[in-house]
Amino acid sequence: MALILDGKKYATEIEADLSLRVKTLVNKGHAPALATILVGDDPASHTYVKMKGSACTRVGLVSRGIHLPAETTTEELLQTIDELNADPAVRGIMLQHPAPKHIDERRCFDRISLEKDVDGLTCHGFGRMAMGESAFGAATPAGIMALLSHYEIPLAGKDAVVIGRSPILGKPLAMMLLAQNATVTICHSKTEGLAEKVAAADIVVGAVGIPRFIQADWISSGAVVIDAGYHPAEKCGDIDLEGCRERVSAYTPVPGGVGPMTIMTLMRQAVESAERFWA
Amino acid sequence: MALILDGKKYATEIEADLSLRVKTLVNKGHAPALATILVGDDPASHTYVKMKGSACTRVGLVSRGIHLPAETTTEELLQTIDELNADPAVRGIMLQHPAPKHIDERRCFDRISLEKDVDGLTCHGFGRMAMGESAFGAATPAGIMALLSHYEIPLAGKDAVVIGRSPILGKPLAMMLLAQNATVTICHSKTEGLAEKVAAADIVVGAVGIPRFIQADWISSGAVVIDAGYHPAEKCGDIDLEGCRERVSAYTPVPGGVGPMTIMTLMRQAVESAERFWA
Repeated sequence: MALILDGKKYATEIEADLSLRVKTLVNKGHAPALATILVGDDPASHTYVKMKGSACTRVGLVSRGIHLPAETTTEELLQTIDELNADPAVRGIMLQHPAPKHIDERRCFDRISLEKDVDGLTCHGFGRMAMGESAFGAATPAGIMALLSHYEIPLAGKDAVVIGRSPILGKPLAMMLLAQNATVTICHSKTEGLAEKVAAADIVVGAVGIPRFIQADWISSGAVVIDAGYHPAEKCGDIDLEGCRERVSAYTPVPGGVGPMTIMTLMRQAVESAERFWA
Repeated sequence: MALILDGKKYATEIEADLSLRVKTLVNKGHAPALATILVGDDPASHTYVKMKGSACTRVGLVSRGIHLPAETTTEELLQTIDELNADPAVRGIMLQHPAPKHIDERRCFDRISLEKDVDGLTCHGFGRMAMGESAFGAATPAGIMALLSHYEIPLAGKDAVVIGRSPILGKPLAMMLLAQNATVTICHSKTEGLAEKVAAADIVVGAVGIPRFIQADWISSGAVVIDAGYHPAEKCGDIDLEGCRERVSAYTPVPGGVGPMTIMTLMRQAVESAERFWA
């Protein structure tokens, strides 16, 4: 029987711990806020921001939801970020990806000050994390690492194949797995012989954003399967889990695996930022 | 017959080009300087700094050699870097690794301003480079990439195995190869089945710093072999080239492969920094 890496359950446990820690801060007279910035009206982004706002409320963080119109310019968004950087009550800033196309999203992400980059999406934060320096990791890969650690999945000396090389998932996850002494292969759209590479992996991570792109018969028996994709219409992730669920050693369910960990990691990093600031 | 990736020859060509470009800057009344900082009396470091100084002179850059005593503190070194950051004539700053152990080397590297980080060793610069943003890459891997490009070695879709994960070589090289659409596996001291992984690679990069660590019979016929190691006492690199030289498709000689490219990449990035500043 495969072990279910139950992100939903573990996120609930983290939530309880964070609530206590926020209470301690509040009792000292602080009101730590997480600012979420949503630009435009993308329905999925709307949902994600709403979920993050609810999570804030549950752990006791002040949710500072900033909703800007779709026609917001890069300069206006940068100014909003500058104001939040300067606001001592705001201990974390999350800019919801994707911003409308006319916005220089990279410039905006990188404007978030390192200490408030609790979503871990600045280039500077990535570089520090990759080099083993103190920094918040990107929330999704950091959540995956927390889940692997919670279930005591061995990583050192294991062959991990990460399929996808996005700035918010594939690249940072590769660096995090490497830091835990996994041997990491980063695959992507130009990779040849993907099926064989997946077959050789002890740990397979789907991070491509294409429904059931990674086929069940590619995955070897006994592998650990992490699915960072979620496709609501198809009700599945990036990996065709059905065909291999019984013979893998552990897997993240979709939904209820990586998703809840992402949100709770954002919360955890916001709480850590607040604790550090008011230490 | 294997193609020799002649770094020495290509570096000489780059040098000629850089000399002309520096002349153009000088004719406009500028005197671009590269500052090299050496702390202590490590003989190898001494040699490297001297070689970089000579290269400056050859391309026409002002070589600002700063030699600090071994007992220099982190704070003193940071102050030196601050002064060089503020000096408009200095267009590049190179801190020779390794600094004496009592110095917080990471903090000192990261103090170098992004525009003068021509050796590409700041966390911030690494993060930007990894994310495809404008930044100077670390000199050794950037030199390797330039050499591969010069000899038109195909990278897209190829399987590259990088053995070593140092901040100045393995990690940045992995990101650079990935940007060129190679499928990249990062191996290290905890990797299991290294021989098999090397055997499966189209491109093998030795970046471990151990003489002939990578054995000739691990390397498959037709592979491209890049050796970033140089061990003067043993007169060899990280790869036992002798046993596979005839059957690989291309290789970097040791010496005369990666080494000259590292120094010339430092020069090239310093010239680019100067050109940008006075554009």
